[in-house]
Amino acid sequence: MAKKVSLSGFPEWLPGQRLVERFVLETIRTQFELHGFAEIETRAIEPVGELLKKGETSKEIYLLRRLQQDPVEAANDPKQLGLHFDLTVPFARYVLENRGQLVFPFKRYQIQKVWRGERPQDGRFREFIQADIDIVGDGELAFHNEVEVAVVMARALGALPIPPITIRVNNRKIVQGYCESLGIEDIEGALRCLDKLEKIGPEGVLEQMAELGFSKNQSQKLLDMAEIKGSAAQVQAATSRLGVVSDLFTQGLTELLALLEQAEIRVPGIVKADLSVARGLDYYTGMVYETTVSGHENLGSICSGGRYDSLASDGKRTYPGVGLSIGVSRLVSRILAEQMVTASRGVPTCVMVAVTSEETRTAADAIADKLRARGISAETAPKASKFGKQIRSADQRGIPYVWFSESSEVKNIITGHQESANVDTWQPEPQYLRPQIEG
Amino acid sequence: MAKKVSLSGFPEWLPGQRLVERFVLETIRTQFELHGFAEIETRAIEPVGELLKKGETSKEIYLLRRLQQDPVEAANDPKQLGLHFDLTVPFARYVLENRGQLVFPFKRYQIQKVWRGERPQDGRFREFIQADIDIVGDGELAFHNEVEVAVVMARALGALPIPPITIRVNNRKIVQGYCESLGIEDIEGALRCLDKLEKIGPEGVLEQMAELGFSKNQSQKLLDMAEIKGSAAQVQAATSRLGVVSDLFTQGLTELLALLEQAEIRVPGIVKADLSVARGLDYYTGMVYETTVSGHENLGSICSGGRYDSLASDGKRTYPGVGLSIGVSRLVSRILAEQMVTASRGVPTCVMVAVTSEETRTAADAIADKLRARGISAETAPKASKFGKQIRSADQRGIPYVWFSESSEVKNIITGHQESANVDTWQPEPQYLRPQIEG
Repeated sequence: MAKKVSLSGFPEWLPGQRLVERFVLETIRTQFELHGFAEIETRAIEPVGELLKKGETSKEIYLLRRLQQDPVEAANDPKQLGLHFDLTVPFARYVLENRGQLVFPFKRYQIQKVWRGERPQDGRFREFIQADIDIVGDGELAFHNEVEVAVVMARALGALPIPPITIRVNNRKIVQGYCESLGIEDIEGALRCLDKLEKIGPEGVLEQMAELGFSKNQSQKLLDMAEIKGSAAQVQAATSRLGVVSDLFTQGLTELLALLEQAEIRVPGIVKADLSVARGLDYYTGMVYETTVSGHENLGSICSGGRYDSLASDGKRTYPGVGLSIGVSRLVSRILAEQMVTASRGVPTCVMVAVTSEETRTAADAIADKLRARGISAETAPKASKFGKQIRSADQRGIPYVWFSESSEVKNIITGHQESANVDTWQPEPQYLRPQIEG
Repeated sequence: MAKKVSLSGFPEWLPGQRLVERFVLETIRTQFELHGFAEIETRAIEPVGELLKKGETSKEIYLLRRLQQDPVEAANDPKQLGLHFDLTVPFARYVLENRGQLVFPFKRYQIQKVWRGERPQDGRFREFIQADIDIVGDGELAFHNEVEVAVVMARALGALPIPPITIRVNNRKIVQGYCESLGIEDIEGALRCLDKLEKIGPEGVLEQMAELGFSKNQSQKLLDMAEIKGSAAQVQAATSRLGVVSDLFTQGLTELLALLEQAEIRVPGIVKADLSVARGLDYYTGMVYETTVSGHENLGSICSGGRYDSLASDGKRTYPGVGLSIGVSRLVSRILAEQMVTASRGVPTCVMVAVTSEETRTAADAIADKLRARGISAETAPKASKFGKQIRSADQRGIPYVWFSESSEVKNIITGHQESANVDTWQPEPQYLRPQIEG
């Protein structure tokens, strides 16, 4: 079912598949807007300095040079440009540039392509759509925003005809406070080990921690924490058993419990704690989130993010934020491969107006124009031919109706029903007007 | 009014401006779909070989290399990639790759960004949105399709609240047949001179033709042809006075007249002949089109295209096509600069639910959620504060209503009207539900 593409990692769809992708995007967009998020788009290209700002040299970035430019000169050009690899870095720049015209806290969404220069053999997408929401504050950002973004994403993904999702949440302050109370200074190291828990299991994690110089006690206690999952009540009970004394840990835990409780009221059954979530904890400073789809856990997280104390800063002012990003292409790819969602046809056309001879094309065009004026998508037959052939042509395209001008009749070629029709008043059956999304 | 951007040639908009851009895009998209065009998107990136296929080395192309790749190695890599500079080259590749799954003639539209590596000082866009329609045939493509695309674009642009447009049309066969009848072999050279007519005037064109070796008679006769404009009747009269004997010329003229007549029936007053239109005549093989906006002729052509005998070919089969491309960013840029179209607010939010204290936030969220469930965009106040401050905050954002939970009242802060409201049944006045596009 998946269309074989000629350039690995650059997905493309046939028209019927594109309709499914658009349905997914429109559904997500609708939820974003119902929650007060305003759309922006940023350019696809940033100065390399912006892209490498956060020291993200591990990211595979595509750099640009003009065809007419010498390669070595371009590589040494301080004004070199590159394609953005996410929507957060461009957004940070946009906020700093436009803060005079924005009202804070600023809630925005962006749905755009991003590019990552992965090696082709890795099988990963190199070009894909992300759908991001972020709330950014001027100098401060209240905690309730960290709840809000999780609720919005739960609704955006919940509105799609896909299996139930789970948003797993953790909090940097919990992990950091805990590490500090255990006398662990290399928090980044601890996080890197915990991030591998799913891949290499508890034994493997203990080994890696030993290599970092953590004691057996520290390592085991970290694992004990990482194994804590579930509801607010479960987390409260399990964490109290850890016997931690740390203000930072307590602060983080309070936030986590508050989010779980709020989320359970507004989007019950979706948000769960998972203290093994470590990805991103090196730059996020509060809540972190990952999202899996039931039965499709091998997709990995389809929606991730967290809170950062400083999205952007100009040296004087700081702009804290919280955001989440859906990997739309990865999700759409799975939806299409498993045919979870399909379009009833690949063309928007509702009616094909038959053309008996090229002399009657003008009259056929006039019929089609009248239907269009009333919001009904129509086309005239590409070629004059016998009715049987034109019906087959419409059928081949998935067009549900054929209009016969001379007799002023319209035939539903799916049901076979044929009837007289007045071009100024006729209506198709509602389910045939537009391509239907079924899932 | 135009937002100053930090990277010349890469336009970005504020949220209210983005709403205008989306309105323009949705209006165009609706017309495309009413005429039976199906959407596709292609990847942004193509192998350099594809981009340079038509010998378009004059186009400024952005080439890519991965950050981790050596610049010289990347430049010599036959598999080097680049950003697409239009949507026709990618479409040609897509057709060849997917022809087994497409029904011909295939009518598709694409609305995507393209990139051109112009020099920054030239002031041109380096990243911009194009909206293209193309009809492509398998081996053959009937002439009526060349009429159809002009009609569709006339309607797409006509549906926008901008001044009237004029689509100027010419035909390669006219120019080529005429040149041949005059004994001119260097048709490309003749076209290059004619293309400068508007810039350097008739005297300048005569000089340039003399430099190419055309005789005074040939040059003057070419100018006589280029000055022919207007309706079918005017063109018929003027061309008959040229006294041309050429089958090719006659064929082109017949097509041109047919298009003018058909277009005049379906989109009266829009399509006019202009035999000075020369751009693109070196690769188009039939009709060519350019479009200007009344009063904004200095924008140049906002929608151009033509018919080509071979969009794509695999050596065995040829796929002729006809297409037109709207320079959306150029148009939107002018619309925004002149405030031809504006959005009534920059946020989607209809209602802000006031929050008297952080303890009442949960109740406020519940109110907002109930409104959203009924399709009304809502947000809770970012911060608990006095009512006056919250009203000012809503006003600052452009949100029309403020909801007071304790008294179950809603206030329209634009009109000042306040009333009791039931959260399960209240409706905003229709013009405030969503941002309104005014133009």
